[in-house]
Amino acid sequence: MPGSNVPENLNLHVSVDCVVFGFEFGKLDVLLIERNMEFEGKEYKDLKLPGDLVRKDEDLDNAASRVLGELTGLDNIYLKQYAAIGSPNRLLREPRDMVWLKSIGHPEEIVVTVAYYSLINIDQDKASNFILQSNAKWYTVSEVKELAFDHLSILHRALQVLRADLMLKPIAYELLPPKFTLRQLQQLYEVILGTTLDKRNFRKKVSNMPFVTPINEKQVDVSHKPARYFSFNRKIYQKTHKDSF
Amino acid sequence: MPGSNVPENLNLHVSVDCVVFGFEFGKLDVLLIERNMEFEGKEYKDLKLPGDLVRKDEDLDNAASRVLGELTGLDNIYLKQYAAIGSPNRLLREPRDMVWLKSIGHPEEIVVTVAYYSLINIDQDKASNFILQSNAKWYTVSEVKELAFDHLSILHRALQVLRADLMLKPIAYELLPPKFTLRQLQQLYEVILGTTLDKRNFRKKVSNMPFVTPINEKQVDVSHKPARYFSFNRKIYQKTHKDSF
Repeated sequence: MPGSNVPENLNLHVSVDCVVFGFEFGKLDVLLIERNMEFEGKEYKDLKLPGDLVRKDEDLDNAASRVLGELTGLDNIYLKQYAAIGSPNRLLREPRDMVWLKSIGHPEEIVVTVAYYSLINIDQDKASNFILQSNAKWYTVSEVKELAFDHLSILHRALQVLRADLMLKPIAYELLPPKFTLRQLQQLYEVILGTTLDKRNFRKKVSNMPFVTPINEKQVDVSHKPARYFSFNRKIYQKTHKDSF
Repeated sequence: MPGSNVPENLNLHVSVDCVVFGFEFGKLDVLLIERNMEFEGKEYKDLKLPGDLVRKDEDLDNAASRVLGELTGLDNIYLKQYAAIGSPNRLLREPRDMVWLKSIGHPEEIVVTVAYYSLINIDQDKASNFILQSNAKWYTVSEVKELAFDHLSILHRALQVLRADLMLKPIAYELLPPKFTLRQLQQLYEVILGTTLDKRNFRKKVSNMPFVTPINEKQVDVSHKPARYFSFNRKIYQKTHKDSF
């Protein structure tokens, strides 16, 4: 956590903020940090995105990785820069935020923030081994209604970028196991898009995706009718998505 | 131009840089500013992108518009933010750049820059009426081999984003007249992609684009065989590009 003595080599005017989405079957989470403070004599708790000031000796991408690692324990996560956000007083909408910034020795004025997002699969072995720091926790995106500063709007912008990327890039298949059912694929889209989809329309769309190929294997040990497994064919995907002349 | 007295209300650590592409049939230009300076007793001239420091009382998008207007005379141009770039010493690769920054009273250290790009049609009536300031001029992109600071890499990143956008969005048709020939469409793609395309392959691809529709009209007064005109059907485009379930 940023201490009360800010080293001189901090650049006082640029920060990074990281929106880390965690995908689980059934829901989409975001990694947030609990902030505890006192305001007007009362204890006050709220949530913020992992973020901090950029140091003079690091570039922006490195700063984002460092800050995320320091504040949450997450390491080696691919972070995608998606926006720079700076408008006068973006940090000062609540008097308590001003008090808090002063208490940790940060500039209370303009901080332009460079926003990064990431998407990891919480269910997968590798991801479930992440040991989060005590004040960093997963929260269900759809239940997050308030965040410190302008972080709710930074989160919503990240969600827009994630949804656009889901439609344009093969990230769905990076989250799914190597063999998956069409029900799983639909559930993934529903969770990330935050909506329910019509099963018939969805399957019709998928049948027009030559890179989602049925394999000769069905579910076993399920109480319902076993569904066929599908796999993602990256070669066909790349061939059909070579968007050039 | 930024004077030698930087007002106190400038944020010394964040700048904006604008890559304005100008499309003409046959070539792609970029708007650059000539920088004249003295270094080690000799006169020195080079080129840079229009850019300047962000003030504390403006947000990033407004800063980009203001700076572009002040430095080039271009007004009311849609600018798209595409990257924030900050790494130690990005401004200090050449000793003369350091001398120049000092001479105009700017911070010589870290400046994180927020990069914007735009694409306008130089040929079109509206655009040809732009009156550029004397030191802002159009240069052919493919002939730009050197720029001040890290501006060449900022330009190249903008070019990558522009090319990706050309493939994903209907910007080609915003640059073309309402009726156009397939030769014009191919030329536009060639100019922006910086490559030549095979005519047969190109026409095959276009025949699979239901939103490029032939109209019942041909060229007149041309010395070669008159070509058919086509038009862009935005409704069909939007219907076929509704990338959702």
